[in-house]
Amino acid sequence: MINKLVKKIEANKAPIVVGLDPMLSYVPEHIKVKAFEEKGETLAGAAEAIWQFNKGIIDATYDIIPAVKPQIAMYEQFGVEGVMAFKKTVDYCKEKDLVVIGDIKRGDIGSTSEAYAVGHLGKVQVGNNSFYGFNEDFVTVNPYLGSDGITPFTKVCKEEKKGMFILVKTSNPSSGEFQDQLIDGKPLYQMVAEKVDEWGQDCMGDSYSYIGAVVGATYPEIGKVLRDVMPKAYILVPGYGAQGGKGADLVHYFNKDGLGAIVNSSRGIIAAYKQEQYTAFGPECYADASRQAVINMREDLMNAIANK
Amino acid sequence: MINKLVKKIEANKAPIVVGLDPMLSYVPEHIKVKAFEEKGETLAGAAEAIWQFNKGIIDATYDIIPAVKPQIAMYEQFGVEGVMAFKKTVDYCKEKDLVVIGDIKRGDIGSTSEAYAVGHLGKVQVGNNSFYGFNEDFVTVNPYLGSDGITPFTKVCKEEKKGMFILVKTSNPSSGEFQDQLIDGKPLYQMVAEKVDEWGQDCMGDSYSYIGAVVGATYPEIGKVLRDVMPKAYILVPGYGAQGGKGADLVHYFNKDGLGAIVNSSRGIIAAYKQEQYTAFGPECYADASRQAVINMREDLMNAIANK
Repeated sequence: MINKLVKKIEANKAPIVVGLDPMLSYVPEHIKVKAFEEKGETLAGAAEAIWQFNKGIIDATYDIIPAVKPQIAMYEQFGVEGVMAFKKTVDYCKEKDLVVIGDIKRGDIGSTSEAYAVGHLGKVQVGNNSFYGFNEDFVTVNPYLGSDGITPFTKVCKEEKKGMFILVKTSNPSSGEFQDQLIDGKPLYQMVAEKVDEWGQDCMGDSYSYIGAVVGATYPEIGKVLRDVMPKAYILVPGYGAQGGKGADLVHYFNKDGLGAIVNSSRGIIAAYKQEQYTAFGPECYADASRQAVINMREDLMNAIANK
Repeated sequence: MINKLVKKIEANKAPIVVGLDPMLSYVPEHIKVKAFEEKGETLAGAAEAIWQFNKGIIDATYDIIPAVKPQIAMYEQFGVEGVMAFKKTVDYCKEKDLVVIGDIKRGDIGSTSEAYAVGHLGKVQVGNNSFYGFNEDFVTVNPYLGSDGITPFTKVCKEEKKGMFILVKTSNPSSGEFQDQLIDGKPLYQMVAEKVDEWGQDCMGDSYSYIGAVVGATYPEIGKVLRDVMPKAYILVPGYGAQGGKGADLVHYFNKDGLGAIVNSSRGIIAAYKQEQYTAFGPECYADASRQAVINMREDLMNAIANK
């Protein structure tokens, strides 16, 4: 799957992943009205609204992007109905041949991590049959519990030819509270990055490992250091756009081959029609605004990489 | 909710939480056969089997325990159908007036943690209505992202009078890989514990804070230290029984008032009928075996506390 991701990034000339993190407040009125007419102002109505919203964006962008990253929290907030919309979104993106990164940030002790790995990437055995649960292509994983929380994911990734991105340095303001603490003179995030490099060596695709890392766009100096610590890890970069990151800040997240990083934008793309720059599209054409935002982001990133 | 938890622990003389972490391999044959007959050897069949299994255990133990802790990973492994069984289990336990600790170990950046907090503890707004998503009473939270991943949970806990347990030192063998690393001479878990104490001071119930901590039973010496670091935090202690912890090892997790800790046992209770000690019950009476295992665990813990 890491090979597919790299190929799709190269083919689209777009190291971009669209964060499908729908808030009800992003969903245009006409979609909400229709969904609520059909299913009421209920959890089912909300789930229908975010699913239709997603579908519009996917239809308008799937041919110019390599990947999507649905954030499962935005679905879990609507309970079981929301989780059903998550699954629908994953399935539809896969129909469109997009690489799906489930932003689930799971992580637990061994046997429990195994259940998460099986449920999100692998197949679970039921009697004589086996079934995919959610069937994403990649997931994000929290490292706080150490290797035996990671190993079950590695095992399933090997079996299924899938992958994961491990949280190293997150994009939020207080990420430093624990992640930046010095251990023998080196910050914790660097220690985690060294582990990601170590875990990833046994999990190589053609040119990159299928064990990648999450490093926020909001800390470009750290990104530069971590690029060298994990040369074979793909870096998933959240925090572009709405959280403040710009293409020029991100050049050091990429390797000399122009690869090695994939930048996420969520609100900046899916709620583009709400930004001044894109108001001309209007809420009815929100998905076209999203497409234009992808095109602009691609230009920003590709220019930055070319001028590196 | 922390007051209710403390009162129920006192009333039952049982600082015990039953981990509802059903693996299909724990479910007795007669329950599986019935579920598969009704819904096939499918995800729906598996979900039905674990739900019926849970229901039996809840019915057999609810009057002698204060709380349950369903581990959501064990449900997510069966996809959407599994998540529906999780929700059914939460609802049924609440009907039985049990305190429900959702073992979800979520944690993300601010706005995303907010969605998790709303989905699992609070109410989400849909048009003019608001709805609970999963509606647990407590959840477990991963601290790796720092305070702005915690604050949204605190906010919802205040609104809803609910609570959380933050991962401090987990019970698994490799937990030390990052958690034990020394920062200015103190291990990371201690730094997290100091934060838990700080965050918790603003969130007091009658005698304990509704921000608690997870500290594994498998590290009793560490439990002793952390008890003093967080005097007002309830400590949720996984790792009793199957993972190796015993009552006598856990006395220092409790305060002088005999309170302050609640010990989880999962496999040791829910799959008790598979242990030599309880084979006389047989698979048909698996739930009675679970009840006996609770009674024995209570005796072990209460003796240990009395002899402290």
